[in-house]
Amino acid sequence: MTGDLRVSWARLRGRLDELGAIGSTGDGGCARLALTDEDRAGRDLVVSWMRDLGLRVDVDGIGNVVGTWPADATEPPVLTGSHIDTVRTGGIYDGNLGVLAGLEAVETIITSGIDLARPVAVAFFTNEEGARFAPDMFGSLVYVGGLALEEALDTVGVDGAVVGAGLERIGYVGPMPCPARPPAAFVELHIEQGPVLEAGNVDIGAVTGVQGISWQEVTVTGQSNHAGTTPMAHRHDPAYVAGAVAVFARSLASEMGPPQVATVGRIELHPNLVNVVPARATFTVDLRNTSEADLQHAEAALTARLDQLAAAEGVTIETRTLARFAPVAFDEAMVDRVERVARDHGRGVRRMPSGAGHDAQMLARVCPTAMVFTPSVGGVSHNPAELTHDPDLEAGANVLLAVMVELATADSLP
Amino acid sequence: MTGDLRVSWARLRGRLDELGAIGSTGDGGCARLALTDEDRAGRDLVVSWMRDLGLRVDVDGIGNVVGTWPADATEPPVLTGSHIDTVRTGGIYDGNLGVLAGLEAVETIITSGIDLARPVAVAFFTNEEGARFAPDMFGSLVYVGGLALEEALDTVGVDGAVVGAGLERIGYVGPMPCPARPPAAFVELHIEQGPVLEAGNVDIGAVTGVQGISWQEVTVTGQSNHAGTTPMAHRHDPAYVAGAVAVFARSLASEMGPPQVATVGRIELHPNLVNVVPARATFTVDLRNTSEADLQHAEAALTARLDQLAAAEGVTIETRTLARFAPVAFDEAMVDRVERVARDHGRGVRRMPSGAGHDAQMLARVCPTAMVFTPSVGGVSHNPAELTHDPDLEAGANVLLAVMVELATADSLP
Repeated sequence: MTGDLRVSWARLRGRLDELGAIGSTGDGGCARLALTDEDRAGRDLVVSWMRDLGLRVDVDGIGNVVGTWPADATEPPVLTGSHIDTVRTGGIYDGNLGVLAGLEAVETIITSGIDLARPVAVAFFTNEEGARFAPDMFGSLVYVGGLALEEALDTVGVDGAVVGAGLERIGYVGPMPCPARPPAAFVELHIEQGPVLEAGNVDIGAVTGVQGISWQEVTVTGQSNHAGTTPMAHRHDPAYVAGAVAVFARSLASEMGPPQVATVGRIELHPNLVNVVPARATFTVDLRNTSEADLQHAEAALTARLDQLAAAEGVTIETRTLARFAPVAFDEAMVDRVERVARDHGRGVRRMPSGAGHDAQMLARVCPTAMVFTPSVGGVSHNPAELTHDPDLEAGANVLLAVMVELATADSLP
Repeated sequence: MTGDLRVSWARLRGRLDELGAIGSTGDGGCARLALTDEDRAGRDLVVSWMRDLGLRVDVDGIGNVVGTWPADATEPPVLTGSHIDTVRTGGIYDGNLGVLAGLEAVETIITSGIDLARPVAVAFFTNEEGARFAPDMFGSLVYVGGLALEEALDTVGVDGAVVGAGLERIGYVGPMPCPARPPAAFVELHIEQGPVLEAGNVDIGAVTGVQGISWQEVTVTGQSNHAGTTPMAHRHDPAYVAGAVAVFARSLASEMGPPQVATVGRIELHPNLVNVVPARATFTVDLRNTSEADLQHAEAALTARLDQLAAAEGVTIETRTLARFAPVAFDEAMVDRVERVARDHGRGVRRMPSGAGHDAQMLARVCPTAMVFTPSVGGVSHNPAELTHDPDLEAGANVLLAVMVELATADSLP
């Protein structure tokens, strides 16, 4: 009977739109950077829904929020959730879907009246995107004890804001301890954010793990000079170095082949004027691979290229690690469960690694974890045009619900 | 007897320091962008010195300021001058030297009591650097009729400021007509801003002309997407294109050889985040050559490379010309005069083109024009470390003075 449970699609769709309207960029997109006023407004809305449902709402020292049923539960829950912060030009599904479908699953379980072997809970984690404060998966990293709370609170963002002060400002510092007590299991629904499912005409991804992430910030110091009078041979040009690294990143990824990706997403020059050879360039390199060995190879190749450029151009190059996570493999039994449930729902399923980082990779450190992917149209994400079709959203939410029901009613968990 | 006239070095040095303190960046540099509060303060100071000397101070519709002696003069003067705006990370000599040494030359001529065949005058021209409003040599371009006043006043700067409103704000809109009546001759003292004189151990440059300048702003529109989930082959990455053009600019200049230079000095990405393939890149390409044919070759090569990149990357590329000036050759007799005067002063002289653009290249359109260069230590300019040694500054000012005395006392001019 519990296998027949279905979420209320109308309610879920309404909540996706209502939350997506906070920080709306007017073009279908959403800008809800962590710890901004928009983040606060989004948090307040989701917390109001949790309270309306009668969940106990716990907030920890890094602003992670967990809504638990029953409210007086003491045993480790089956946890679901994701994040509601976005990048500056984000869509309305990335993260938000996992939180609101998780809330929907919990609500459906509660109203169904089924007997639970253990509590259920839905969380949203602080600053998953890392767009304002590095690293990404920031809140879930602290949640599982991967980053000390004190260090996390002292983190300074790209705009000079400090995490601790930002949390105080928006009123999301709570007494729940972190690291938290591990949940019984964790399952996260998320849009794929890549083209694989749509290209394969597949409904559901049973995520096997998450590729490793290496983020470096590179600062090149050269010599500012007049663009008209300085012969090319006399230059120490950080903008040239930034350009050469952007070109190198492309060729490195091409030579290594998929799944290696390499991105220069941020470049800042100083003084950044048409007629001045810049004094300084700061830019980022994002490297990802499902193989730790290959990721380390890519990092080493980047370091070698930077050394070469520093020597050839007579510039100083400093690098700073903004994030570094090894590839993660999810619990086999959990992945099998997602795959089986999706097939039971009549869905086409593909086992696949995640190209993006997710809170689930942090939770995988402390409990059996899995993820459910739904297709992204055109593979587009971190973009106002981000879209997953309604039937795919609904199918994903129902797979999440069914997996949670199984986990919450099983006599014992893997 | 007039050949023995010398400027007051102590007064000139003091004025360089006093003007350089306005907009001081605290590291020996100066930030006095056109039409800012700092620009107004610098203007007010120089105008006060002009008035103290008894000059007639005329301001035109684009904020150019001319101080003329005698105050009731009606004939075209022998004009000197330069500019007092700086780039954001400029030094205290670029432009300022030409204005203050010009003022010093006029003051020395006045106090010497020598008979003049025609008036003398010193000017500073608005927004020579082009760092805030394109093109560079903005004020002198309007002064000689190369840009209509109305169009100039409507120009919008990189920060959204409008020239007309900016001039009103700082109180430098005056009734002197522009285009102006051509002066009898123009001579400008300037630091070289390049390494040639110092490397050759030469005291004075007799500038033969100014290389041509081509400034383009390039806007690349691609597709913003997730840096982790978007396979390299699916990307339309404007940051890669910006990088590839920075690398191309270097190789183009290397292949063409000196005097071709090519600079990418400004790059802006949107949204400029570590984990997002950018949606858009805007950057500038500064191309310069003493040969118009070679400059056109460089422009055509850039256009071809941009077309190639647009097709290969599936991005849209738009270009906008921010400045375009053909190479300029100065009046032969004027250049000869500078060279001879410098030799008479016992200085080593080199005839040389200017790598940088200068107000003199605009004045050359309407009157016999020349320039005097003094050596730049290390060729460094547009940089707080910009330096010309005191003896070189003094020698340059005295060559300027002597050339002006010859021009102001000659029965007829070339």
